[in-house]
Amino acid sequence: MAERLLFLGIDVGGTNIKAGVVDQLGQTLAHTSVPTQAEQGPETGLHNIHRAAEQAMKKSHVTLDDIQVIGLATPGTMDLKAGMLLDPPNLPGWNDFPIRRRVHDHFDKLTILQNDANAAAYGEYWVGAGRDARSLVFWTLGTGIGCGIIIHDLIIEGEHSHGAECGHMVIQMDGGRPYDTGQTGTLEAYAGGKSLVRRVEEALVEGRKSSLGDLIEEGTSLSPLLIGQACEQGDELAEEMVMDVARCLGVGTTSLMHTIDPDMVLFGGSMTFGRHETELGRRFLQRIKDEVKLRAFPIPYARTKIDYAMLGGDAGYIGAAGCAKLKYDSLQ
Amino acid sequence: MAERLLFLGIDVGGTNIKAGVVDQLGQTLAHTSVPTQAEQGPETGLHNIHRAAEQAMKKSHVTLDDIQVIGLATPGTMDLKAGMLLDPPNLPGWNDFPIRRRVHDHFDKLTILQNDANAAAYGEYWVGAGRDARSLVFWTLGTGIGCGIIIHDLIIEGEHSHGAECGHMVIQMDGGRPYDTGQTGTLEAYAGGKSLVRRVEEALVEGRKSSLGDLIEEGTSLSPLLIGQACEQGDELAEEMVMDVARCLGVGTTSLMHTIDPDMVLFGGSMTFGRHETELGRRFLQRIKDEVKLRAFPIPYARTKIDYAMLGGDAGYIGAAGCAKLKYDSLQ
Repeated sequence: MAERLLFLGIDVGGTNIKAGVVDQLGQTLAHTSVPTQAEQGPETGLHNIHRAAEQAMKKSHVTLDDIQVIGLATPGTMDLKAGMLLDPPNLPGWNDFPIRRRVHDHFDKLTILQNDANAAAYGEYWVGAGRDARSLVFWTLGTGIGCGIIIHDLIIEGEHSHGAECGHMVIQMDGGRPYDTGQTGTLEAYAGGKSLVRRVEEALVEGRKSSLGDLIEEGTSLSPLLIGQACEQGDELAEEMVMDVARCLGVGTTSLMHTIDPDMVLFGGSMTFGRHETELGRRFLQRIKDEVKLRAFPIPYARTKIDYAMLGGDAGYIGAAGCAKLKYDSLQ
Repeated sequence: MAERLLFLGIDVGGTNIKAGVVDQLGQTLAHTSVPTQAEQGPETGLHNIHRAAEQAMKKSHVTLDDIQVIGLATPGTMDLKAGMLLDPPNLPGWNDFPIRRRVHDHFDKLTILQNDANAAAYGEYWVGAGRDARSLVFWTLGTGIGCGIIIHDLIIEGEHSHGAECGHMVIQMDGGRPYDTGQTGTLEAYAGGKSLVRRVEEALVEGRKSSLGDLIEEGTSLSPLLIGQACEQGDELAEEMVMDVARCLGVGTTSLMHTIDPDMVLFGGSMTFGRHETELGRRFLQRIKDEVKLRAFPIPYARTKIDYAMLGGDAGYIGAAGCAKLKYDSLQ
């Protein structure tokens, strides 16, 4: 048997940092999670990154000497070539922070930086729901819409670190919904979690009846989770809005099937309504597929697998470790 | 100096077949063009392909023994892995035709098949306007809208030969224009040459005044060329429609800049209104850029070059030869 090679994957989120030690086959030895404390600035955050990494190694009973390469995944905006965070909305105040160099210098270990959605996509491609695919589009449904594209082990980073920012594709050029980014008619303006909440709120203001209106009057803030629960209890407005999110995701997926033409399209993230485990999750996925059937060419429609992802919140650190392995392989 | 390696590039169009002998640096020794006679079926067409290839070799003073690999570019639909034409609208009756094997068998020479828009994109990337780019999106504006995407020498063929069919991206999901393909709201439904003509005709039927109405009454059929000429003579309707085509191309380009994030986006094909050589061509390109500025993120907007292609009708056979060279290189 070949030597077991180990990689350290670190996924820095706005709330938590996940870190894990992963071998060359994508098996996790152990992983951990610590709070990012992002609002306390990058130096505190960096300290927490180091702490997460050390905890993961300790739990895995390995030392830094056993690690080949460190893979670091963070939200953008970023400059991947420079290893810099630029102006990340989810890490406020971490502007122009040379995060790759700082982690490298602390551990004195080769470190690569990857966008978190790209890393999660690579995780699913490597050992997750896409492990049999040659190419993959992975949508992350949360507050916004993240995306990663993998084609034959190539991660579509883009020349200016804006590859696979497919939530910002235009799906309604005229009369499209405005969005926080200043753009209009983008997929995220219709189908991100924040947009779903806003669309429900707008409909309530327009006088639509819904159990969600009562919740707001009781002082509850809406969330995709609450809207999904209202769906399951038969609320018409919630049902209409959640299924329209699925429809818009089907539109965006069609455009990518006519651009990338991957083997597989996966949906992950917090706004997947229980995935295959719930009736709503199954209907949500089916609505996406129905829209693709309506709009895509017959051959890609028939041959492209569309499904939920399977690694959940572990996709990021596993994928970051996978990206570290890609770097290691490229140097052999 | 290294040995000069030669490749034979063949670009099969609905009207003409272009063939050229091209060396490993992308320099053409000689090229030729013969009618496809596509309507006479695939056996006649195949005979003409062989004739074009032989003429190109004769004009180049080389024989088949001097050729390393043959590169064949055709319109789709096709199965690239199988080397088959499936149901190509521009080669009616050539259904399920094993074109790669037939050319291979005739010349007894390694032959590769590529989509014509992909091949043209590779030609521009290899030795054309994109020769300094690391990645490229190339739009071919004609009756329809073709596209090719190259990322670091990888041609995005897709898993089902539907890669870079970006004319079929959805840009207006609700209330979008219908199109011949059965789809609605696609880029091609707004910005292809056939769609431009239709949109002008529809406006005339609705009572819009235009010099183009007089042309139709005289029995002339509209074309993008005539519409462009009307623009240059100050016709308001023509101007509005041509600039709206540019706007829609800017929308589609923005979506690709947020998906592929290439170094460069190029526009070629017959519907480029004289390119940099005419005032209309310059305004057309500027309108595309203005729309991108409005919709794209600042960094890709600032750093992505948007320009016209430069190889014109030679991009296809040169790119086909380039794809043959890629195959040759992969075997060394």
